[in-house]
Amino acid sequence: MATSEGSKLWGGRFVGDTDPVMERFNASIAYDQRMWDADIRGSKAYVKALEKAKLVTTEEMTAISQGLDQVDTHTHTHTHTHTHTHSPKELIGAPAGKLHTGRSRNDQVVTDMRLWLRNAISTLTENALQLISTLVERAAAEIDVLFPGYTHMQRAQPIRWSHWILSHAVALSRDVDQLQEIKRRVDVLPLGSGAIAGTPFDIDRELLRKELDFNGISLNSMDATGQRDFVVEFLFWASLCLTHLSKMAEDLMLYSTKEFSFIALSDAYSTGSSLMPQKKNADSLELIRSKAGRVFGRCAGFMMTLKGLPSTYNKDLQEDKEAMFDCYDTVLAVLQVTTGVMSTLKINQSVMEAALSPDMLATDLAYYLVRKGMPFREAHGISGKAVFTAESRNVALNQLTVEDLSAISPLFGGDVSSVWDYRSSVEQYSAPGGTAKSSVAAQVEHLRTWLKAQAQ
Amino acid sequence: MATSEGSKLWGGRFVGDTDPVMERFNASIAYDQRMWDADIRGSKAYVKALEKAKLVTTEEMTAISQGLDQVDTHTHTHTHTHTHTHSPKELIGAPAGKLHTGRSRNDQVVTDMRLWLRNAISTLTENALQLISTLVERAAAEIDVLFPGYTHMQRAQPIRWSHWILSHAVALSRDVDQLQEIKRRVDVLPLGSGAIAGTPFDIDRELLRKELDFNGISLNSMDATGQRDFVVEFLFWASLCLTHLSKMAEDLMLYSTKEFSFIALSDAYSTGSSLMPQKKNADSLELIRSKAGRVFGRCAGFMMTLKGLPSTYNKDLQEDKEAMFDCYDTVLAVLQVTTGVMSTLKINQSVMEAALSPDMLATDLAYYLVRKGMPFREAHGISGKAVFTAESRNVALNQLTVEDLSAISPLFGGDVSSVWDYRSSVEQYSAPGGTAKSSVAAQVEHLRTWLKAQAQ
Amino acid sequence: MATSEGSKLWGGRFVGDTDPVMERFNASIAYDQRMWDADIRGSKAYVKALEKAKLVTTEEMTAISQGLDQVDTHTHTHTHTHTHTHSPKELIGAPAGKLHTGRSRNDQVVTDMRLWLRNAISTLTENALQLISTLVERAAAEIDVLFPGYTHMQRAQPIRWSHWILSHAVALSRDVDQLQEIKRRVDVLPLGSGAIAGTPFDIDRELLRKELDFNGISLNSMDATGQRDFVVEFLFWASLCLTHLSKMAEDLMLYSTKEFSFIALSDAYSTGSSLMPQKKNADSLELIRSKAGRVFGRCAGFMMTLKGLPSTYNKDLQEDKEAMFDCYDTVLAVLQVTTGVMSTLKINQSVMEAALSPDMLATDLAYYLVRKGMPFREAHGISGKAVFTAESRNVALNQLTVEDLSAISPLFGGDVSSVWDYRSSVEQYSAPGGTAKSSVAAQVEHLRTWLKAQAQ
Amino acid sequence: MATSEGSKLWGGRFVGDTDPVMERFNASIAYDQRMWDADIRGSKAYVKALEKAKLVTTEEMTAISQGLDQVDTHTHTHTHTHTHTHSPKELIGAPAGKLHTGRSRNDQVVTDMRLWLRNAISTLTENALQLISTLVERAAAEIDVLFPGYTHMQRAQPIRWSHWILSHAVALSRDVDQLQEIKRRVDVLPLGSGAIAGTPFDIDRELLRKELDFNGISLNSMDATGQRDFVVEFLFWASLCLTHLSKMAEDLMLYSTKEFSFIALSDAYSTGSSLMPQKKNADSLELIRSKAGRVFGRCAGFMMTLKGLPSTYNKDLQEDKEAMFDCYDTVLAVLQVTTGVMSTLKINQSVMEAALSPDMLATDLAYYLVRKGMPFREAHGISGKAVFTAESRNVALNQLTVEDLSAISPLFGGDVSSVWDYRSSVEQYSAPGGTAKSSVAAQVEHLRTWLKAQAQ
Repeated sequence: MATSEGSKLWGGRFVGDTDPVMERFNASIAYDQRMWDADIRGSKAYVKALEKAKLVTTEEMTAISQGLDQVDTHTHTHTHTHTHTHSPKELIGAPAGKLHTGRSRNDQVVTDMRLWLRNAISTLTENALQLISTLVERAAAEIDVLFPGYTHMQRAQPIRWSHWILSHAVALSRDVDQLQEIKRRVDVLPLGSGAIAGTPFDIDRELLRKELDFNGISLNSMDATGQRDFVVEFLFWASLCLTHLSKMAEDLMLYSTKEFSFIALSDAYSTGSSLMPQKKNADSLELIRSKAGRVFGRCAGFMMTLKGLPSTYNKDLQEDKEAMFDCYDTVLAVLQVTTGVMSTLKINQSVMEAALSPDMLATDLAYYLVRKGMPFREAHGISGKAVFTAESRNVALNQLTVEDLSAISPLFGGDVSSVWDYRSSVEQYSAPGGTAKSSVAAQVEHLRTWLKAQAQ
Repeated sequence: MATSEGSKLWGGRFVGDTDPVMERFNASIAYDQRMWDADIRGSKAYVKALEKAKLVTTEEMTAISQGLDQVDTHTHTHTHTHTHTHSPKELIGAPAGKLHTGRSRNDQVVTDMRLWLRNAISTLTENALQLISTLVERAAAEIDVLFPGYTHMQRAQPIRWSHWILSHAVALSRDVDQLQEIKRRVDVLPLGSGAIAGTPFDIDRELLRKELDFNGISLNSMDATGQRDFVVEFLFWASLCLTHLSKMAEDLMLYSTKEFSFIALSDAYSTGSSLMPQKKNADSLELIRSKAGRVFGRCAGFMMTLKGLPSTYNKDLQEDKEAMFDCYDTVLAVLQVTTGVMSTLKINQSVMEAALSPDMLATDLAYYLVRKGMPFREAHGISGKAVFTAESRNVALNQLTVEDLSAISPLFGGDVSSVWDYRSSVEQYSAPGGTAKSSVAAQVEHLRTWLKAQAQ
Repeated sequence: MATSEGSKLWGGRFVGDTDPVMERFNASIAYDQRMWDADIRGSKAYVKALEKAKLVTTEEMTAISQGLDQVDTHTHTHTHTHTHTHSPKELIGAPAGKLHTGRSRNDQVVTDMRLWLRNAISTLTENALQLISTLVERAAAEIDVLFPGYTHMQRAQPIRWSHWILSHAVALSRDVDQLQEIKRRVDVLPLGSGAIAGTPFDIDRELLRKELDFNGISLNSMDATGQRDFVVEFLFWASLCLTHLSKMAEDLMLYSTKEFSFIALSDAYSTGSSLMPQKKNADSLELIRSKAGRVFGRCAGFMMTLKGLPSTYNKDLQEDKEAMFDCYDTVLAVLQVTTGVMSTLKINQSVMEAALSPDMLATDLAYYLVRKGMPFREAHGISGKAVFTAESRNVALNQLTVEDLSAISPLFGGDVSSVWDYRSSVEQYSAPGGTAKSSVAAQVEHLRTWLKAQAQ
Repeated sequence: MATSEGSKLWGGRFVGDTDPVMERFNASIAYDQRMWDADIRGSKAYVKALEKAKLVTTEEMTAISQGLDQVDTHTHTHTHTHTHTHSPKELIGAPAGKLHTGRSRNDQVVTDMRLWLRNAISTLTENALQLISTLVERAAAEIDVLFPGYTHMQRAQPIRWSHWILSHAVALSRDVDQLQEIKRRVDVLPLGSGAIAGTPFDIDRELLRKELDFNGISLNSMDATGQRDFVVEFLFWASLCLTHLSKMAEDLMLYSTKEFSFIALSDAYSTGSSLMPQKKNADSLELIRSKAGRVFGRCAGFMMTLKGLPSTYNKDLQEDKEAMFDCYDTVLAVLQVTTGVMSTLKINQSVMEAALSPDMLATDLAYYLVRKGMPFREAHGISGKAVFTAESRNVALNQLTVEDLSAISPLFGGDVSSVWDYRSSVEQYSAPGGTAKSSVAAQVEHLRTWLKAQAQ
């Protein structure tokens, strides 16, 4: 025991040695570093509460606070050197021993995490808004481009390219909304909860809340120190957000195949092949897609770690930090790369519009009959027969003559030719949410207004 | 083709037969039944919009609407007979063919799901509030019971039993808050989005919204028909909620072991053994714990199904319903069983209080020194030495004499005896969130107020 | 207690009533039914061991055994009526009470599960071999068809269509190998392990093993009754197997888009649209893809349920059966549907071959230089410049003249024209595993031999 | 482009700049380093095959091979300096450009991974065997210690402590068996598969196999480069193995609570509290338990990344390495820490045996009646009534008099006293797998033999 006497906070107790594997296993220094700023901020607030409670003098408070500032500076200039871990005491001196009065690692670390995550959420929100704004402005600029809308990966109906873009922007706007809700649950002060029972001193938790700019105070000390719901919620948010971006990436990969050729990624977001000189791979899109798995794995892993745990702090909770940091880093990079991809890709409008084909207007052909009074179910069957006839003859649907069509249903007349115009087709879909120009423009305006509101 | 001519909506198109395995694989009738009421409600609203758009006459509207009511009645009296699946047309007659005008399975089914889930959320909310109320009132009634608070499954500090109860109530109140946020995102009308592009007729989506009492209208038709975020959010909510109940169950299992003997479950929530006549197993708690896994599996499975999908409707989304129903059924049962368990279990107060031991006051012993001016870090070491001394001599910590203690630190005096009172100890923790009686009572009041606000 | 007296095995013990929600929650009858045959088989073996141990007489053994046969017949004629659950005792009479001597639900049920799963594995193996055989024979038949090989979803190099088919067959053959390994771990008798401690009677476990045709006997009774590794291994196997089929389905979906048009699914495996008359969706492929998520969710859920459990039987394990049955049903259906899809889809050879483009021979162009002595790294760069030149001029790579190429590297000569033949290109890849005809034919032969070995 | 001209292998192609976020996102250098040795070994083998195929001269082969050795040395002396990444070319000179002839990153990297993982599996196997051996020898040494066996966390029947230990050793022995099966699938050479189509040169894959000591050669080049089944199998293996250790840890945590007090962990595997001086937390056990979640998260994440991917190499697969390394590191540490825990913990035999209580012999009481001819079902009910009677009178079961018992069943006689001996009770369970001394000793011998067989 002589060797480590005094070097651990619980120094008075142990008589055995420690297994070095266990030491490394137990260590959290690598990821605690990222919360150093938050930790110092929390400690500076805590020492004010200690002073108010007369547990340190004003002079001690000042000494500790200045010492903490020095630690902070020291840390920023010596990152990665690992030398700072014993600094606080050296830099602060004797009063350092009072800093932990009535505070436990349990409430201290979870306070650090909440401070850190609150900040991280702000950064992610900004980056998500940047991406949404990029999408919305691109949608506004390219509103006149038509291309095939797909369901089941099969050509369905002509739509606006902007309609596709906005479908992803809308999903991301939900992500932003949800992230703000999570932030409200993150923004709650646990400090003053001790290890489990609360604090036995006159620690003014309201003072701590104000100093650290939290929105509220935790209600129950056992819950405050033992729950990681705010982390779990964040991990799941990251998973759902990246699932959205994976979906967009999947579409773009399809559109950038040689066979579709709707879009071309900027070289900045493509990579070549070590073997095949002609290859230009959309690596960025594949990475975006892959990260949805990674991030969900973090969520699943931490959920599984939580499952079946008893109440209050258990060491298992230490898995929280790596998961939180990794999800933050990953989502941030994905948002930035996706913004880069979407602001630099080039569309091939002529190919997109050439991909529209008359059979995509079969629904319109049925609607033509509906407008002449035929029930839709029947009209759907008639239109299907027209499609079948055209396929059998190996001609395009719009190449069937009025006679051909009349043979299928007498309701068809010469005015059926009006059906075969793609622009007219999309303009029919003018109800809210539809793909008509007015409707897409309204979506753009709605999102612009929403973006402005978020910025405030 | 002759055999199935006309029996499928897409009857005009196909020329091949169908593999019976594929038919079953593709079928969704078993779980679509649960949304029958929602579907009829949605159809009745839709026919009103069709009438307003002059796509059906007032008479047709009435005929369809009455037919739907009959289908509804028919369904409720013939559940499980599977005979109703072709009813609508028989019951409504020719106008039935007009009901699908401008509507797709894509916007129809997702509307049904949102109607169903909105209702399911209300039921779950009520049941969760019932459980929270049970917890809060039990906490109020048993506020004077002390027992050991555990961290790392080791005795930590004396706390109130009610403090433990409330720690779980607080977690559940967050679940309820979050569920209401999800409900807001569920409560959005997708009807009128067609298959992908929107609706080409004068379908008044605002009329639909009012008829179906939705809070808002979906912004983009591609997003509306192709996203299942509201399902995913619900599945994850269910996972987190059951993780909370698994945590509580884990504690209760521990407390109901012979070795702890703090509580005894009602026989209604216990089961015997087929082999061992003396066994009384807390099966209810094990089931609660196990369901957290099941529900998370549903969430993980559906997230994995979503991952990497392209935009818009793909058949893969059909996995949404079983997951949603199973999570609802499971969470509902777990909430009810947990309410039953918590309202009927008996506590063994004398055993609980006998489990408090003087070493659990070692922190208080350190605080005694802090109050005499010693920095906490040093006081912690001194108290640790006292614990070590007591253990070495195989006596309880409070059996060390003042002389013993003085030998460790001269600050110890005769007044140290005041430390060894468990009730005095817990009363120190009177800051908000702590385990003092006043603080626990304040938590009870806070939650009672919150419960009242929810009920409105 | 009067009401339920005697109706439960643990009838002598309980004095409370039971919550009906708890009863349903606790019930396993719905899925226990599927193991009825296995249960009867296990019981018939067990009664023989009881007779050998002189715990029942020969007459009692006969009576019980015949009674079990009657239960079996009764069950098969009255499935779904739920009336058989109390049959055993009625059909067997008094000796029925001896059947459970020294046997616990714990060792009984896990024996049933192993018997059931062993059988299920045989069925899945047969169906997987059927699919592999279909793939192999199709590969043999269509060995002369070339089409683009893709990496990163971009055209990479010309390959044989059969090479693609076999890549999936090879993955499935690993699945079959792995399933046989799992079967060896399933094929171990737990009966005779009691609830936890083993059996205290002279139950001849070797007799039980032989009667039930198990390959081995469990080593430790606590492990035997408390582990579900064989279920977990099976669930994970199902996940990996369906991930393979999801990958194949993903390719086929791409190949069946209008833009690729390489293949056309049989109508039996396609579905139309309720809205769009021209649509023919590859629903079967989407379902195959989606089931990988579902099955993995079952695996994740059960793993999470297991995580953190203490040793031996806990009620949580009851989640094992639904997961096992659902994964079996799902994988079986997916294997059968995939076999159907692969045996009926039509390829469009002319489109496939027309999709080969000269730039896919850029690697061959580099190899041309390598064969003339240039280091590959340099040759790769030269070929890349040729690709860039062709793109800049908007001509195909093979339309660059010898002069154009010589300007990039003097090593190019008139014989470069030999590079531009797709069939010659693929024939170069004749090393084992490559896409040359001889190499693909060798793969076919290898798998045919392997299939024959499996059938024995 | 000028700046990076030539610095990328695909230098001839790109004209745009690269986003630095994308660069970092795309980078794999951090984890590729761990495979440096494997990569050099693979390259040295490959250059021999190039020489045999006359694609490099013998002198070039020697130069490249020596250069690779220098890179290796350089790397080991400059780890973490990141300066070695451009070394190969500098150290080898011009011939370095020939090393990649006919080799792609796709087959190169997957070869590296298989070499690395094969080695990692050997290390894990050794560590797992070490743990099993520790368990077996501890079981042999402490075979005479009895304690309560628990099911549902409730005292069930008296068992040997060694029986408990061996239940975990048996589970781990299955893990070792399964890991060797996985190793066979890892031990397959993919090199020579190129990017997708195979190798077009006379690369002797059999030579490569021998040089790299692989057990077999991949059958299909598309499968070889695009599948990561061997990684997935390993990740899942890690999850199941750690679930076993989590289960053992859960038991040990329970046994080390104050309330059970069956065991005491060595100080080397315990940690104190920053707040509570008396605390000694079993952190090692909590970490073991938590890692099951972490590792499963890696498995779930990678499975999700794979799900829905098309065939062959996609950049998404880059997620394989971090998952593989993290699972290896984690499992290795957990195995070592568990070995340390299990070789140093102290049992408290007197407390363990004092925890045995007469009601745990209720099954034996029923068996007493069975041996007198009563059917078990009836005997179970009678014994239950005896338990109920004892509980009602608040006495121990063995304190009921013969008269008390006779009143419940006339079969009870004076010899019932023989039931109340714990050692006699466990000795009844002498069938294979039971808890009798002979049976436990047989388990020890079985595992010793198995361990010897593994070591060969």
